[in-house]
Amino acid sequence: MSTPAGPASDRVQVRRLPSRAAYDPAVIHAILDEALVCHVGFSLEGQPYVIPTIYARVGETLYVHGSVASRMLRTLREGVPVCVTVTLLDGLVLARSAFHHSMNYRSVVVLGRAEEVTDPGEKQAALRAIVEHVVPGRSLEVRDPSEKEKKATTVLRLPLTEASAKIRSGPPVDDEDDYAIACWAGEIPLRVRPETPVSDGRVLPGLLAPETVVAYSRPGWSKLVP
Amino acid sequence: MSTPAGPASDRVQVRRLPSRAAYDPAVIHAILDEALVCHVGFSLEGQPYVIPTIYARVGETLYVHGSVASRMLRTLREGVPVCVTVTLLDGLVLARSAFHHSMNYRSVVVLGRAEEVTDPGEKQAALRAIVEHVVPGRSLEVRDPSEKEKKATTVLRLPLTEASAKIRSGPPVDDEDDYAIACWAGEIPLRVRPETPVSDGRVLPGLLAPETVVAYSRPGWSKLVP
Repeated sequence: MSTPAGPASDRVQVRRLPSRAAYDPAVIHAILDEALVCHVGFSLEGQPYVIPTIYARVGETLYVHGSVASRMLRTLREGVPVCVTVTLLDGLVLARSAFHHSMNYRSVVVLGRAEEVTDPGEKQAALRAIVEHVVPGRSLEVRDPSEKEKKATTVLRLPLTEASAKIRSGPPVDDEDDYAIACWAGEIPLRVRPETPVSDGRVLPGLLAPETVVAYSRPGWSKLVP
Repeated sequence: MSTPAGPASDRVQVRRLPSRAAYDPAVIHAILDEALVCHVGFSLEGQPYVIPTIYARVGETLYVHGSVASRMLRTLREGVPVCVTVTLLDGLVLARSAFHHSMNYRSVVVLGRAEEVTDPGEKQAALRAIVEHVVPGRSLEVRDPSEKEKKATTVLRLPLTEASAKIRSGPPVDDEDDYAIACWAGEIPLRVRPETPVSDGRVLPGLLAPETVVAYSRPGWSKLVP
């Protein structure tokens, strides 16, 4: 990986295998936009918790949301240190030695402190961005959140100021002597694929699944062969 | 979800939407065995970090490994509190309202403290289990770790005594009034699929990819249609 930019802090500097590091915002944004869920890490009474959740990126801001009753949201909005990690698994890397087995992946780690979004306009935009993150185009097709629903939802903002990416791609790297071993080596690429959409059984008669659903795709996905 | 067993502790009890909780070891094991990577959460100088890594389950034990130089491994082997989370994303749940959009998923959260594996037999078995976790059958095809490679690798053990699963499946649940809206609703199932294996270009002439590679599958995967 080329590293056109350096880390924003010592804390997000990739130490192990620094050649896999990327600090370029465009690289970080692309990973955040392609992935669906993040894993949010925070500590409560000395115990770390890691919780998967949906998110959205808008510019240099990451939004997460949840019920006002959520322990995670209530903890994070106090402004405690948080780590948000996003991981895309691209393939299994099979070497000739057990030791050199690896994975191809693209991951992003964001450190910081979250803040509650209280401005109604920003909150509305963030909620829309979260729907758009999951299903591009969907926010125009659905009923917008009511005032009651918005009141029941906490939205948090985390700036992307302290973020780094780590990427591995390509074939295994074996010890030179091991290339003589009669063992197949290479990569098994892995891809997340949408399967045929399943109606919930109460769709109004004659209403077909829209293009946003039948041609579901994400930023970064190459054209899928059905 | 049926909940044949209760939580092992208050800390792993699912509070939000407790109907999605599962504490049955068989349910927890199945999720751990199907997923490929976990997200490991730990705190260092008050800052939580969440790092994706490979793991393996053997009975009631989870193993993770890494370079002896890894900051994560060096921190965890001190016995600090850790959280290991595994998430399988099964589908996008599209409701008629933005508010009721959701994801279908199966996740496991394990809390505890890790210990370094120092017994050579257990360490060897754990390293083998990690290769087997990623590619079932692969450990019989590759060169085993040398003494030098084992010395360069830290293996940690985390008991599954404090673990819980959280599962959502099925269609969206809309507000009754919203079923009259002319908006398609249902699920877009998501599946991780292996693509055609790619040789690293230095495989010995005439050596074909073995069955473990060309028929790659994971516990819990239904038969894949190529």
